[in-house]
Amino acid sequence: MDKSEAIKMHLNLAGKIQTGLKVDLTPENLRLLYTPGVGEASMMISEQPETASKLTIKGNTIAVVSDGSAVLGLGNIGGQASLPVMEGKAMLFKALADVNAFPICLDTQDTEEIIKTIINIAPNFAGINLEDISAPRCYEIEKRLQEALNIPVMHDDQHATAIIILAGLINASKVLSTDLQNSKIIIIGAGPAGYATTKLLKDYGINNVIVCDSKGAITSDREDIDQYKQEISTENLSYPTSAEQACAEADVIIGLSREGAITEEMIRSASDNVIVFALANPTPEIMPDVAKRAGAKIIATGRSDFPNQLNNVLVFPGIFKGMVKNNIQSVTPDIKIKTAEAISSIVDRPTVDNIIPSVFDERVSETVANSLK
Amino acid sequence: MDKSEAIKMHLNLAGKIQTGLKVDLTPENLRLLYTPGVGEASMMISEQPETASKLTIKGNTIAVVSDGSAVLGLGNIGGQASLPVMEGKAMLFKALADVNAFPICLDTQDTEEIIKTIINIAPNFAGINLEDISAPRCYEIEKRLQEALNIPVMHDDQHATAIIILAGLINASKVLSTDLQNSKIIIIGAGPAGYATTKLLKDYGINNVIVCDSKGAITSDREDIDQYKQEISTENLSYPTSAEQACAEADVIIGLSREGAITEEMIRSASDNVIVFALANPTPEIMPDVAKRAGAKIIATGRSDFPNQLNNVLVFPGIFKGMVKNNIQSVTPDIKIKTAEAISSIVDRPTVDNIIPSVFDERVSETVANSLK
Repeated sequence: MDKSEAIKMHLNLAGKIQTGLKVDLTPENLRLLYTPGVGEASMMISEQPETASKLTIKGNTIAVVSDGSAVLGLGNIGGQASLPVMEGKAMLFKALADVNAFPICLDTQDTEEIIKTIINIAPNFAGINLEDISAPRCYEIEKRLQEALNIPVMHDDQHATAIIILAGLINASKVLSTDLQNSKIIIIGAGPAGYATTKLLKDYGINNVIVCDSKGAITSDREDIDQYKQEISTENLSYPTSAEQACAEADVIIGLSREGAITEEMIRSASDNVIVFALANPTPEIMPDVAKRAGAKIIATGRSDFPNQLNNVLVFPGIFKGMVKNNIQSVTPDIKIKTAEAISSIVDRPTVDNIIPSVFDERVSETVANSLK
Repeated sequence: MDKSEAIKMHLNLAGKIQTGLKVDLTPENLRLLYTPGVGEASMMISEQPETASKLTIKGNTIAVVSDGSAVLGLGNIGGQASLPVMEGKAMLFKALADVNAFPICLDTQDTEEIIKTIINIAPNFAGINLEDISAPRCYEIEKRLQEALNIPVMHDDQHATAIIILAGLINASKVLSTDLQNSKIIIIGAGPAGYATTKLLKDYGINNVIVCDSKGAITSDREDIDQYKQEISTENLSYPTSAEQACAEADVIIGLSREGAITEEMIRSASDNVIVFALANPTPEIMPDVAKRAGAKIIATGRSDFPNQLNNVLVFPGIFKGMVKNNIQSVTPDIKIKTAEAISSIVDRPTVDNIIPSVFDERVSETVANSLK
């Protein structure tokens, strides 16, 4: 079988990142940085643990951790098979924010073991970026690690996605002159991204957010929902609550689901100024041209070959850079909102086809980092 | 308080290594290495796990792992405080053998947790270099990891030290035209380095090796010794067995202990051609000039400011490079002997003051790696 271009490039590189030295290895540097000089640095950290961030890589190195249980588009492929993705994240941390990041791909999918393992290796790191861990384990793992560690821990799939959606909505509302805070927002998909997006939009002051899973709108009276869906449920609705019905008069429809999960009918029943974010990857819930024909005024996807690419790569390098730089230990709603506002602010004059900066825009990580002061 | 030069340089660098990209982040590279191309690499690893070494950093990345329980000269300072040392090792791996290495400093000193944690993060790595873990835990941890993992696991303090000692002895015997295999060798110090050195010298065919701990020669009839000392014990000796007495007529005295552990008297009572390796750091068991005055014909230390520096940095970059390159999964006696012979072979014409290559000799890691074919 012919190898694809992607496989050929992976084979050719044998790793997307590498380690590098910061100074040449001279006898003088060896004396200061290795034996005997290194003993002084170790002694200082032993006596004043907080100096580790200034004396070592701990000050600027993020662990990109996955157990490979929910890899985008591939499902549960295990830790080792997720390594190419995690190396890719580490590459993006460096390229886009000059933050060192190192992949840690786990050979366990047991919640307790994952938590214990990450705690045990945390002394090296300035932050923990969790990736591609399946729900509901991802919530428990993130929460427990945040409680146990005094460095920022963020599940990227949840929060970076929520942040980039908020950033996109801020500018889309500006373009359409709509009132975001009073919008009716329907989220199709109640996985980690749907969960975190709902919470963030509510934290931003948007009250009318209805999340739908495969069974329809998640209302608090449903008996088939777990504690996490309960948290993002809406009060009982007075009408039947399929996703299709929920979309009536919606100002925003956000797909965090799969191909086909947003229909033309949903868009037609929504408000005249409806914004559609169809973020399933690689195939969106509805294709942009179809959504536009059905009446969507602004459309965004996760793909680079359409306008308005909402990709969490715009978020994680900068937010970690900012948290590390400003010694912020928790990813609070305030931090997330500031990050979203910083990203949206980079687009000078948002238009229908330009609500979000390019993933290659070098200003993004620096602007986000500075906004977290 | 004035900051020392070493602390200033550590502060200035904030990390001795960093991550780097292997290619620029262009839209084309992003498409092949991240989304969507990365999915093909992950899928291939998922279906054929052995391809991970060719498609990712796993092929050439070593974990430098410590719990900081026995850091050279500093004792038990804990994982985080050992980070400057482990970064130093990672720097040396890269500088001396072009091997990527990443420090993993543990927040636990529990044997079972250490083993579990390392197994859980192993999918990323081509090998595990254990550092500065106290005895007897280091033996158990190394053995259990070797059994559990299909990548090389080596406790550097043990085996790299043993290998560099054997390399030094091979050339020292050549200089003095003595018969190494039939030499009487006294090892002062029965910690991890003494344990591994005794085993390696016996594997090399040297039968007359007597190890001494603080109570004297370790004989098999002693009731105060653990299983590891039992393994390296000699049969019952017919004479009283202090370290001093053991040194009578010795051809080689190796210090793996502390300042003062080798006396002039020991050297005077040894053979006329006695070789003395005083490897305690930073202060040797006996200073070279004193040892020479007492009759030592060849003296080596671990220090760079005396001739014949026996430092394990001559070993670990090359042996891991060679094991990875040649797909060797176990650090067998044969591998260790080949490594020692390769290192000693680099010195063209050994002399009293030149039995070992410089730690900066760029031929070492390549020569070692090639010798393991």
